[in-house]
Amino acid sequence: MKKSLGVKTLVYPTPVWCVGTYNSEGKPNVMTAAWGGICCSKPASVTISLRKSRYSYQNIIESGCYTISVPSAKYVAEADYYGIVSGSENNKLEKTGLTPVKGEFVDAPYIEEFPLVLECKVNHSFEIGVHIQFIAEILDVKADESVLDESGRPDILKAQPIIYDPGESQYYSIGQKLEKAFVVGKKFKD
Amino acid sequence: MKKSLGVKTLVYPTPVWCVGTYNSEGKPNVMTAAWGGICCSKPASVTISLRKSRYSYQNIIESGCYTISVPSAKYVAEADYYGIVSGSENNKLEKTGLTPVKGEFVDAPYIEEFPLVLECKVNHSFEIGVHIQFIAEILDVKADESVLDESGRPDILKAQPIIYDPGESQYYSIGQKLEKAFVVGKKFKD
Repeated sequence: MKKSLGVKTLVYPTPVWCVGTYNSEGKPNVMTAAWGGICCSKPASVTISLRKSRYSYQNIIESGCYTISVPSAKYVAEADYYGIVSGSENNKLEKTGLTPVKGEFVDAPYIEEFPLVLECKVNHSFEIGVHIQFIAEILDVKADESVLDESGRPDILKAQPIIYDPGESQYYSIGQKLEKAFVVGKKFKD
Repeated sequence: MKKSLGVKTLVYPTPVWCVGTYNSEGKPNVMTAAWGGICCSKPASVTISLRKSRYSYQNIIESGCYTISVPSAKYVAEADYYGIVSGSENNKLEKTGLTPVKGEFVDAPYIEEFPLVLECKVNHSFEIGVHIQFIAEILDVKADESVLDESGRPDILKAQPIIYDPGESQYYSIGQKLEKAFVVGKKFKD
């Protein structure tokens, strides 16, 4: 039996992505976003939504790019901090002792200590309501060598991304391997 | 040390969402999408991206709405099946024995057996490349009473949503509770 909970931004899972930008003077900043997702396979594109009041919003408007660094569970406090204070008054990377590295393909910094990184060039922006959606092309994915498997692909269990539950404002870890996609469902085919 | 993996739609986490629609004759259909996310807090909005060739695409264009039913891990085979065959030739819900229920706020069916449901009205659509992005307002969130906690809020550990790893085409379960958002990061504040 279903119970109606009303209008809410409540769904599972949502990501914990640390969005890296430079301001016009080259100062690196990072903010955490949970509103986003992959939005196109070709061109490979990812979307994030930000409020206009965010310091990172202006940086993205000016530079036309950003990075997404995916934190491991052990950096959950750092990732949370990046979402609760503004870069206008804080040097968040310095404060947490993490290392900004200039992107190879875009003029935006990523976080060296985080295992998975996307370099993104903004193709479109779209005002939905209180949030502006950026649609960006993924120019490169980078992974830390420590999280690659024998075939050279990132292993999510080594990367240990964080899952955000917007209903309870709570972070979770990734669980166990369930099944192979495009395989397990075949049992229902004729 | 980071290794460049090139252009990929690879990021963690991505969702496993079963998108429910009716066709013009009222036949229910469901397809699984991993390209999507929350995109605005007000109006509460969620985005999914579909290829135009998908049977559900035409249904959404005609009806202007859809539901998102979030499957539990125990329905991973059903959810996978909904992503590998087309509703044009299959009655996917009948085949898997799951129950379509007409939405309360939109003319689209949700899946009774899945623990969390969003009813969504399309406000915008946007052609990015091979995928069309729908931006939809969340008119209602529904949760199964069996997954609510003592305070009446959905418990993600009871709902057991599935996490999709697009790098390895693999499904994962949700892991353990880590930390409270907007709290754990305060330790870095002055």
